[in-house]
Amino acid sequence: MRNFKLTIEYDGTDYLGWQRQGVSSGAKVIQSTVQGTIENAIYKITNDKVNLIGSGRTDTGVHARGQVANFKTDNPINLEKLGISLNSVLPGDILIKHIEEVDIDFNCRYSAKNKEYRYSIINSRFCPPLCRKYYTHVNYPLDFKLMRKESKILLGKHNFKAFKSYTKKNISSVRKITKITLNKDHDIITIDIASDGFLYKMVRSIAGTLIEIGRGKFPPGSMKQILKSKDRKLAGPVVPPQGLCLMNVSY
Amino acid sequence: MRNFKLTIEYDGTDYLGWQRQGVSSGAKVIQSTVQGTIENAIYKITNDKVNLIGSGRTDTGVHARGQVANFKTDNPINLEKLGISLNSVLPGDILIKHIEEVDIDFNCRYSAKNKEYRYSIINSRFCPPLCRKYYTHVNYPLDFKLMRKESKILLGKHNFKAFKSYTKKNISSVRKITKITLNKDHDIITIDIASDGFLYKMVRSIAGTLIEIGRGKFPPGSMKQILKSKDRKLAGPVVPPQGLCLMNVSY
Repeated sequence: MRNFKLTIEYDGTDYLGWQRQGVSSGAKVIQSTVQGTIENAIYKITNDKVNLIGSGRTDTGVHARGQVANFKTDNPINLEKLGISLNSVLPGDILIKHIEEVDIDFNCRYSAKNKEYRYSIINSRFCPPLCRKYYTHVNYPLDFKLMRKESKILLGKHNFKAFKSYTKKNISSVRKITKITLNKDHDIITIDIASDGFLYKMVRSIAGTLIEIGRGKFPPGSMKQILKSKDRKLAGPVVPPQGLCLMNVSY
Repeated sequence: MRNFKLTIEYDGTDYLGWQRQGVSSGAKVIQSTVQGTIENAIYKITNDKVNLIGSGRTDTGVHARGQVANFKTDNPINLEKLGISLNSVLPGDILIKHIEEVDIDFNCRYSAKNKEYRYSIINSRFCPPLCRKYYTHVNYPLDFKLMRKESKILLGKHNFKAFKSYTKKNISSVRKITKITLNKDHDIITIDIASDGFLYKMVRSIAGTLIEIGRGKFPPGSMKQILKSKDRKLAGPVVPPQGLCLMNVSY
């Protein structure tokens, strides 16, 4: 048995997120998923019906520059040929950037040590058409320095229950944020967050909270209070998916 | 009579270019044009069937960050209200960035003094999905320094017949290029060209010629020879539209 690790870039605009839609859902699937599209491409090339394991799910409309996934097969196909063939059958909005053969025990989801996301905001009066698919538009003035200052409280190991969208019992909400960096270039603000793992909609809840702080709806000091409260109702809203991009996963 | 000048940004991906399709063409119009879409929006707001004059046509798939257009109307509508109302009825891929009232003699096309275009290239092995709609992908290695050096020969007043796609008799091919700047940032190459006017597909022919020079298909010195030859057959191909963006028009 062989185990292939793929590094993938995708434009999530036209996808119903990463995860293949199960037939059991009963919903009529009119949009594709990234996982399903790549599994179909693998089937076209190798005739194998594989289970492609992603490092994690990305929601509808979320992009990736460095999603990582793996699948197992007995197929003797040449590694380079597989990469070229997959890209030739995949649509232009999904690209296999790198492919390698890894140890049979490697699992993209469970072996992941750290993940990094970027949330991109365009802070202008109107939303520029050329930015609308990859940035979240905010037309309130934002106090960037305050956002940056407040973000730093999140660094380190904390219980991030206040920033997760729903609660599965017995699942810990403790995560370690290893990096949170805010940058501003003209009217573009980017929030880079790396962690040993993320809770459901955690990045978009943190970005939403930072935006509320930046526009003055939440007073200075709010981030610390919200984090301590462990109360989702006190945090800012989950902001739109098109601003979010999975940048890389390290192992 | 009032004369309104609009500054417009658009994502040209889903449009059949700027120019409204005449009914006389006989072709079934299944895609919209930017001009037609904005004229319809003006009609919705003011009930006026106006003729929106653009500074020039952009082809199918070409983008604009600073297209300029004007239209005349007797409508007494408030200027600010007009701008807000238009953006509220326009789709997300067209934005009126600025609107002002100008002298009745002002004509966007004939009053234009200088125009600037950007041609954007992504020079990498594979085309990144997140770039595919706004960059032209070139997977040959490109000699950027040579491209930049050769481009400089185009500065100033010349007969650009070698870079125009078709010939209307009695129309001069002499134009004055006031700026040509090439920049490289990692695998992104941008070509910024400003001129007192452009011939049909001139920017994309110049970009195509620079790419042929950069990949070594045309030898050093080619740009000078092609310019002197006035022969379209000697220039490089017209490269794809999605890399082209009308940056601004000055008056």
